[in-house]
Amino acid sequence: MKQSIGKKPAIIPTPVLIIGTYDTTGKANGMTAAWGGVCSSDPLSISFSVQRTRHTYQALIEKKDCTICIPSTAHVKEADYFGVSSGRDRDKFSDTGLTPVRAPSVNAPYVDEFPLVIECRITHVVDVGVHDLFVAEVVDVLIDDSYLTADGKPDLQEAPFFFYNPLDRSYYKTGDYLMKGFSTGNLFK
Amino acid sequence: MKQSIGKKPAIIPTPVLIIGTYDTTGKANGMTAAWGGVCSSDPLSISFSVQRTRHTYQALIEKKDCTICIPSTAHVKEADYFGVSSGRDRDKFSDTGLTPVRAPSVNAPYVDEFPLVIECRITHVVDVGVHDLFVAEVVDVLIDDSYLTADGKPDLQEAPFFFYNPLDRSYYKTGDYLMKGFSTGNLFK
Repeated sequence: MKQSIGKKPAIIPTPVLIIGTYDTTGKANGMTAAWGGVCSSDPLSISFSVQRTRHTYQALIEKKDCTICIPSTAHVKEADYFGVSSGRDRDKFSDTGLTPVRAPSVNAPYVDEFPLVIECRITHVVDVGVHDLFVAEVVDVLIDDSYLTADGKPDLQEAPFFFYNPLDRSYYKTGDYLMKGFSTGNLFK
Repeated sequence: MKQSIGKKPAIIPTPVLIIGTYDTTGKANGMTAAWGGVCSSDPLSISFSVQRTRHTYQALIEKKDCTICIPSTAHVKEADYFGVSSGRDRDKFSDTGLTPVRAPSVNAPYVDEFPLVIECRITHVVDVGVHDLFVAEVVDVLIDDSYLTADGKPDLQEAPFFFYNPLDRSYYKTGDYLMKGFSTGNLFK
């Protein structure tokens, strides 16, 4: 039996994305966003939403480049800090001891300690309310070589990632492998 | 040490969303989408991407209403089937034995067996490549009462949800609770 719980951001799971930018003074900054994900397969693009009041917003509009970094469970607290503080008055990298590295293909920094980095270039900005939704084309993806198999393929089955549950505003680990996609459903055909 | 793996949809995790619509003949249909998530806090909105060739695309354009249903691990195979088959030539509900129910607040069906249902009304359609990105305002959220505490709050800590990893095109369980958001990061202040 279903019951109404009113208007809630009831998407489970949402990812924890750190948007890396150089701000208008050139300082490396990062901002945590859970409102985001893949939005197009070709050109491969990511969408994410940023409020216009955020320090990162101006950097995105000015620079048009960013990274999207995905932390592992080793850095949940740091990822949370990147969401609750502002680069307007703090240097989040020196506060947390994390290391900004200039991305090879876009004019933006990434967080060296985070295993996955998506280098992006913004193609659309859409006003969707208090947030603007940015669409960013993927230029390249970087991965820690500890997550690569001997033949150079990413192996993330055992990777300790985490996600955000907006219904209880908490972080959870990703869990065990279930099954291949685009195949198991064929049994109903 | 980071290595390039080229352009990959490297968002972990992505959600598994079943977009429920009535097609142009009035038949209940559902389509699985992993390219989606929350995109605005006010008005509370979800974005998701659908290729223009999909049967669901025409229903969304015509009806402007949909549901977004989130399955539990009890229905991974059914969720996969809703992604690999087309409502153009199949009745996915009768193929899988799942039950379409007319949503109370929008002109769209939901999947009765899935624990979370977001009732939505489309506000924006943005051409982002092979996909169109739909922005849909949340009208209401329904939840199975088995997931509600005695005081009517959703309790999903033990809920068996799952997600999609686009890097290996596989499904994984959501995992254990880690910590509260918007608080633990304050230690760095």
